[in-house]
Amino acid sequence: MQRAIRVGLIGFGTIGTGVVKLLKKNREQIRDRVGAPVELVRIADIDTVRDRGVKLARGVLVPDARQILDDPEIDIVIELMGGTGLARKFMLEAIGSDKDVVTANKALLAHHGPEIFAAAEERGAEVGFEASVGGGIPIIRTLRESLGGDRHDAIYGIVNGTTNYILSAMSSGGEEFADVLKAAQADGLAEADPTFDIEGVDAAHKLTLLIQLAFGCRFAFDDVSVEGIKHVSQDDIAFADEFGFAVKHLAVAVRHKDRVEARIHPAMVPKGHPLADINGALNAVVLESDALSTNMYVGLGAGMMPTATAVVGDLMEIARNRIQGCRGRVAPLGYPIARQDKVRPLPASAGEGTYYLRMRVVDRPGVVAKVSGILGRSKISIESMIQRGRSGRGPVTMVMRTHRANDRALRRAIASIDRLDVVRGKSVVIRTEESLSA
Amino acid sequence: MQRAIRVGLIGFGTIGTGVVKLLKKNREQIRDRVGAPVELVRIADIDTVRDRGVKLARGVLVPDARQILDDPEIDIVIELMGGTGLARKFMLEAIGSDKDVVTANKALLAHHGPEIFAAAEERGAEVGFEASVGGGIPIIRTLRESLGGDRHDAIYGIVNGTTNYILSAMSSGGEEFADVLKAAQADGLAEADPTFDIEGVDAAHKLTLLIQLAFGCRFAFDDVSVEGIKHVSQDDIAFADEFGFAVKHLAVAVRHKDRVEARIHPAMVPKGHPLADINGALNAVVLESDALSTNMYVGLGAGMMPTATAVVGDLMEIARNRIQGCRGRVAPLGYPIARQDKVRPLPASAGEGTYYLRMRVVDRPGVVAKVSGILGRSKISIESMIQRGRSGRGPVTMVMRTHRANDRALRRAIASIDRLDVVRGKSVVIRTEESLSA
Repeated sequence: MQRAIRVGLIGFGTIGTGVVKLLKKNREQIRDRVGAPVELVRIADIDTVRDRGVKLARGVLVPDARQILDDPEIDIVIELMGGTGLARKFMLEAIGSDKDVVTANKALLAHHGPEIFAAAEERGAEVGFEASVGGGIPIIRTLRESLGGDRHDAIYGIVNGTTNYILSAMSSGGEEFADVLKAAQADGLAEADPTFDIEGVDAAHKLTLLIQLAFGCRFAFDDVSVEGIKHVSQDDIAFADEFGFAVKHLAVAVRHKDRVEARIHPAMVPKGHPLADINGALNAVVLESDALSTNMYVGLGAGMMPTATAVVGDLMEIARNRIQGCRGRVAPLGYPIARQDKVRPLPASAGEGTYYLRMRVVDRPGVVAKVSGILGRSKISIESMIQRGRSGRGPVTMVMRTHRANDRALRRAIASIDRLDVVRGKSVVIRTEESLSA
Repeated sequence: MQRAIRVGLIGFGTIGTGVVKLLKKNREQIRDRVGAPVELVRIADIDTVRDRGVKLARGVLVPDARQILDDPEIDIVIELMGGTGLARKFMLEAIGSDKDVVTANKALLAHHGPEIFAAAEERGAEVGFEASVGGGIPIIRTLRESLGGDRHDAIYGIVNGTTNYILSAMSSGGEEFADVLKAAQADGLAEADPTFDIEGVDAAHKLTLLIQLAFGCRFAFDDVSVEGIKHVSQDDIAFADEFGFAVKHLAVAVRHKDRVEARIHPAMVPKGHPLADINGALNAVVLESDALSTNMYVGLGAGMMPTATAVVGDLMEIARNRIQGCRGRVAPLGYPIARQDKVRPLPASAGEGTYYLRMRVVDRPGVVAKVSGILGRSKISIESMIQRGRSGRGPVTMVMRTHRANDRALRRAIASIDRLDVVRGKSVVIRTEESLSA
């Protein structure tokens, strides 16, 4: 049998612990499949004391990542420390010293992917990042290899488990966003600082990677239009239900020839669309392709063990390639950088959609005329309207669904409407995604 | 750039035509991703005359497969001729002369897989068979590589598009099996001879492969318990709906330590289970795994272009491996044959389930007592019962759902019930799959 493949892990948190567990539990199976033992020889973490519930041999856990990076005997470095500063430096250093790297760090790859992938391509090194999108859902390798002979028109889905959990819980339990978030934090289903999740930044990191893989093009994180879910209320979820929709936090990328539209936002998804039933911590990615038609992949998008399977899958692939002498067999993004398509971003505001609008208006004759007058002058026609809550003397809720409209015109019209003296507060706009059908 | 990878295609039918189209349409993309042109240099088919709607260079289409098998310049042979006789011979011959092979032939691999995979392993040759299960759904590579670090407890789903189309159409349109089948044949959605599909043989072929990939074990086609959908009637679909279920033709494999249970049969799937909403020609595969938890993959399970993407994906993978000198990088089943787990089949009749029963009984006092007496003596308890159609003097329909019961005991009880003088014809038994939850 082949010499063992030696692995170093930087960052011994939740996922790191899962990786240790999985490598230990399925040791023989992994060896048999790879053709050599895959040995985790060193783990670096500032905290060398905390009990993670896994037993390590003496000397494996060290406080300094240098003991991994400087060890010429280590073949593969797993980066699970997070962040985009030191993680970037370590990754480039590992690649530079002919190690391969595996990471779950979508923020790092969304921001510094071009630099890291170029360095890897130049050195013939491997960058495994299956764990960075969709937890254990094998969407990265599927796009990079299995479906490489097809052209993809759109990739979209639910790629953040926290926001999907919150919206699902709001939908089933009737509580408002803030209360559900608090409960999710208490249950460990949302981070103490959930900003990246609930603002859509995490989803945008992932979409940046999916776009490059699916469309074979370069695409920058800054060109993703990002909107979180904080403004979604129980009212919106109840009205959506009444209209026949579920509110989902979607990541959407559509290719229009040499332009790519990329957006993260709460969306009304028609019941009956497979994404409408993806609830809780599940993620789902839908691919619409030229030859393949529609494909969907569903699974847990986060969590210790699901994410660990993706890390270990990458480790096995890279170990095999090292053993067989074909490191860099596939470019990290499936496509050599020099041959990536040149595309320009298409701002979400340049597109068209149908919209759900919720406004608080004073309960007075003529209000509908004022609001619909502004929409009409912007060439936005109303498909349906509901006005509720006429019990007291305060403002009432008015909800509308529009026919197909230009996004920019719609947003401008809403800004005008919000300046009317009969409108209270900021109106809520949720795009519907009726055109995406499986 | 690397020399071109030369491909020969045996069998120029629907999928073969799709492969030609896809290789032509995405020629540059495939070259860029692989690192060399992938050239279809010869196609062998008995029919060299029929217009398939694709233009070929002069001399490419030949009548004799020998012109591919005997050509030392050809690297990869795509076998799309079907059957298990000549196809087996050609495949072994190609492997023996250091070519790699790609096939969509699940019947061949279900019956002769061990021989073919052993030959490939011995010669370090590649066998690509992504197209054999789930059309364009990349389930083969996912099991073989991405999820190789996890252990799978169960794999099940809808793997035959014809039966799913028929059951979906029966459910939405209210027509009986025979009429829907006729319409599907007229529309090209069912074969002229649909036996393999509607009897469950095709699904059993596919399940035989999925079991070996998912559980890392050898498993024989003959050990799959197979039941078709011919006996499913509108009554069953309507009662299922009333009870909150959809009738689906499922392929189910469950690992119980060193035993594997494998069965194809119509099943009652609770509404709300993701498989209940997989309709028409869609396929879906659900995987329940130790670390990953539940994953699901959905897409078109057949058709010219979806299946062609799988063939081309395999071609690209193999072309890459040839270029990089790592042929046979992964064993065809993900696991070297010598290290496959030894498992024994667990007959479906040894298991337990809950069941739906439909009987035709004479409309006379005491009938329920007789039927339930037999069930009671077999220790099968009834969860609910409906009796309908008491308008005339003829037999009436009686439907029951059981609590959890032993399969063999249930089947024996039904045989006794069918011998009662108050029972007309053969009763229908449909297993419910409530335990499979996503």
